[in-house]
Amino acid sequence: MLTKTPRDSFVEMTQMVLPSDTNALGTIFGGKIMSWVDIAGAIAAQRHARRNVVTVSMDQLHFRNPVKLGYTVRIRAQVAFVARTSMEVVVEIHAENPLSGEVTHTASASLTFVALDDHGRPTTVPGLIPETEEEKAAHEKAVSRRNRRLFEARKQAEK
Amino acid sequence: MLTKTPRDSFVEMTQMVLPSDTNALGTIFGGKIMSWVDIAGAIAAQRHARRNVVTVSMDQLHFRNPVKLGYTVRIRAQVAFVARTSMEVVVEIHAENPLSGEVTHTASASLTFVALDDHGRPTTVPGLIPETEEEKAAHEKAVSRRNRRLFEARKQAEK
Amino acid sequence: MLTKTPRDSFVEMTQMVLPSDTNALGTIFGGKIMSWVDIAGAIAAQRHARRNVVTVSMDQLHFRNPVKLGYTVRIRAQVAFVARTSMEVVVEIHAENPLSGEVTHTASASLTFVALDDHGRPTTVPGLIPETEEEKAAHEKAVSRRNRRLFEARKQAEK
Amino acid sequence: MLTKTPRDSFVEMTQMVLPSDTNALGTIFGGKIMSWVDIAGAIAAQRHARRNVVTVSMDQLHFRNPVKLGYTVRIRAQVAFVARTSMEVVVEIHAENPLSGEVTHTASASLTFVALDDHGRPTTVPGLIPETEEEKAAHEKAVSRRNRRLFEARKQAEK
Amino acid sequence: MLTKTPRDSFVEMTQMVLPSDTNALGTIFGGKIMSWVDIAGAIAAQRHARRNVVTVSMDQLHFRNPVKLGYTVRIRAQVAFVARTSMEVVVEIHAENPLSGEVTHTASASLTFVALDDHGRPTTVPGLIPETEEEKAAHEKAVSRRNRRLFEARKQAEK
Amino acid sequence: MLTKTPRDSFVEMTQMVLPSDTNALGTIFGGKIMSWVDIAGAIAAQRHARRNVVTVSMDQLHFRNPVKLGYTVRIRAQVAFVARTSMEVVVEIHAENPLSGEVTHTASASLTFVALDDHGRPTTVPGLIPETEEEKAAHEKAVSRRNRRLFEARKQAEK
Repeated sequence: MLTKTPRDSFVEMTQMVLPSDTNALGTIFGGKIMSWVDIAGAIAAQRHARRNVVTVSMDQLHFRNPVKLGYTVRIRAQVAFVARTSMEVVVEIHAENPLSGEVTHTASASLTFVALDDHGRPTTVPGLIPETEEEKAAHEKAVSRRNRRLFEARKQAEK
Repeated sequence: MLTKTPRDSFVEMTQMVLPSDTNALGTIFGGKIMSWVDIAGAIAAQRHARRNVVTVSMDQLHFRNPVKLGYTVRIRAQVAFVARTSMEVVVEIHAENPLSGEVTHTASASLTFVALDDHGRPTTVPGLIPETEEEKAAHEKAVSRRNRRLFEARKQAEK
Repeated sequence: MLTKTPRDSFVEMTQMVLPSDTNALGTIFGGKIMSWVDIAGAIAAQRHARRNVVTVSMDQLHFRNPVKLGYTVRIRAQVAFVARTSMEVVVEIHAENPLSGEVTHTASASLTFVALDDHGRPTTVPGLIPETEEEKAAHEKAVSRRNRRLFEARKQAEK
Repeated sequence: MLTKTPRDSFVEMTQMVLPSDTNALGTIFGGKIMSWVDIAGAIAAQRHARRNVVTVSMDQLHFRNPVKLGYTVRIRAQVAFVARTSMEVVVEIHAENPLSGEVTHTASASLTFVALDDHGRPTTVPGLIPETEEEKAAHEKAVSRRNRRLFEARKQAEK
Repeated sequence: MLTKTPRDSFVEMTQMVLPSDTNALGTIFGGKIMSWVDIAGAIAAQRHARRNVVTVSMDQLHFRNPVKLGYTVRIRAQVAFVARTSMEVVVEIHAENPLSGEVTHTASASLTFVALDDHGRPTTVPGLIPETEEEKAAHEKAVSRRNRRLFEARKQAEK
Repeated sequence: MLTKTPRDSFVEMTQMVLPSDTNALGTIFGGKIMSWVDIAGAIAAQRHARRNVVTVSMDQLHFRNPVKLGYTVRIRAQVAFVARTSMEVVVEIHAENPLSGEVTHTASASLTFVALDDHGRPTTVPGLIPETEEEKAAHEKAVSRRNRRLFEARKQAEK
């Protein structure tokens, strides 16, 4: 099975914040952004695995700036790390004021997806070779997030 | 300003998984669940603060079991901890197979919301008095999650 | 086949009124509430029958108070009466102003669902044993609504 | 204030049943039809009153035939009776199998709307002059439905 | 195979412009109208062919007047011309101000659909006999649009 | 007023085809693609003008290959030509089979948007300087499309 680079899975999604995406205050729902993030992440994971994928987990997500009605939201996702059957995808979310052009950082997210075979069972995915400095840094961060998750899961289990 | 109990903010939301909520495999999108979780959490935070609220962050979320087309999803949310202007809401998500009645645990989530005054600025919220053993345990866990978040934010800042 | 109590089928659904649910006046569409009522009712009927169900009829529905953008809507449904293959579900709808906490009665509804077997044909459902005083009163009202419906259907047929 | 005929308010709405309108069985939700009925009825009431309108009540609705994915639904609505500030709209719903062309009667509904002035208060609407035999029959039926509703409301109040 | 008239395929769709259909300015998205036009056109093509159909092309579409939140949109579609397996449908879109009753022409569109057999392959459709003067004029215009499209396609191919 | 390059307005949107986007055959609605194209085009026009924009027209659009449930759709839009208050945006749509990775050309579109000032009146937009060979070719094609449109509009008017 061949290996791939993070760039091979890169996806860019752009959305306009419509009235149906906003709450009574005219700002977007956190949950709406999460649902775009989940889809962008799944597309990146599918591009890496060329398999159907399911979301297994989403790491902590912190909204830094409000996103308003009419703003443009840009979501960039890319696989940062792979284990045997799972992939961690890093997602960056920015929002653009359409009138001023000002772009602000909305949130960063990291999600884990598992690849499924035709019977819905986890299946192996291609290896990942980070190439650029940025990709290597993202890979290292993903490894340490994974280690912390495994460590905490073990602590939970020992209780 | 009066204080409230976690129970005062309790909300139960039930949803049916419709075709428009599912992917090509007939299982629900993680992002769809996240958007229900965000709304249920916001309702709980509003019930505590009696203010408009915005989502500030969502802690790690892990999907334990797949949720399929036609299943019933039950989401329960309740404020577990409050700081001056923010509230941490704990959310439990279960799914029910409508034919067998089997109920499985889908995920647990914890979200932070900030209360806003009429000018959109953070505003103080009532205090929280956990009463039952369960509420006290949830409160303690929320405190330690908050401490870890503050600790990590400080580490980030020092870099 | 075992019998069940009305409580066994109880479902509580909570929804937030979003901009996409409202008309040009900022109040919710009657039709939106009806679609929530239909889903909550179907979940209750499924819990009783553990079968797929279809909506057969909805009794008169009267909206008592307007429900506005940002309000929280609480829908409670429970089977009140069963015939051989059909179930009558009673639904209570209340709305909550999120800032004042004031709760008003929006409407009461009563719907009939039929249980379907795997071939889509009507199939028998478990018996219903109302236990509390409230459940017994709901049962009696459902019986008299049913009698009136049958009476009117006969009058129609005789014309 | 001028008077109008039922025909002046006539509206025909056609919808295609899409996957997002159906349940896990591939048949449309009763609630989805109700929401189309509510909108078609509101358009008819607006055409009569040339005012914003709100749904006040929906009379009993009985689904006669299942409507499936891909079917075409035709909804026809027309004001049948007016009181000082309210209008009763009669709605006929038919479904068409797109491949065979067979058309079946899905349901009949009757809804009451109230016209609102610019301050959201009930306001008078034009009178209604039924012209054709069909319109006169619909008008009479609406009057007797209204009388029954008023009679039952009085009985309720006297208890 | 029998022939049909344009009138046999006629469809009228009425929609109310809801907040979820509008942009930040309170006017409807062009894309929303296009999606209604596509569905109305598909229903007309299905009524002619009594087959599943897919959209092949949409001719130039020009929006003449803005359509606002709360307006009623009326879409009328009818087959104007048929080739062996394809049908050209002409669609007229008008918008109505619900308070003044003023109706304005929004756009005219012409779409081509292909009929598919049970294996998803193009299949022959009934012939079309335009009867009224209007239908004959629409037929002639459709023929000349088709000739221009074929001419331009040939020019493209020769490059 | 400064000038801009076509690249300044470039937008890439990626969407996954969900069950709610498809018809009974499991292929996407033409109208759904049109609505994505309209939004992507509007974002490009907004980036050029830094003003609110409305869709004025859409040129002929031809769907070359079916797009199925689960496919990924990539939409790229960029301003190709500007007049005083209007902008022509060229949009390229491709679809990707998520399992095989095969990418096919779905359609090309060209839309015209008008920039609006704060009172909703047309307002001047920055000039456009095409730089690359590709941008110059797109600009020329847009000019000839515009000339043809003006020519045809004049012919219409003379009749």
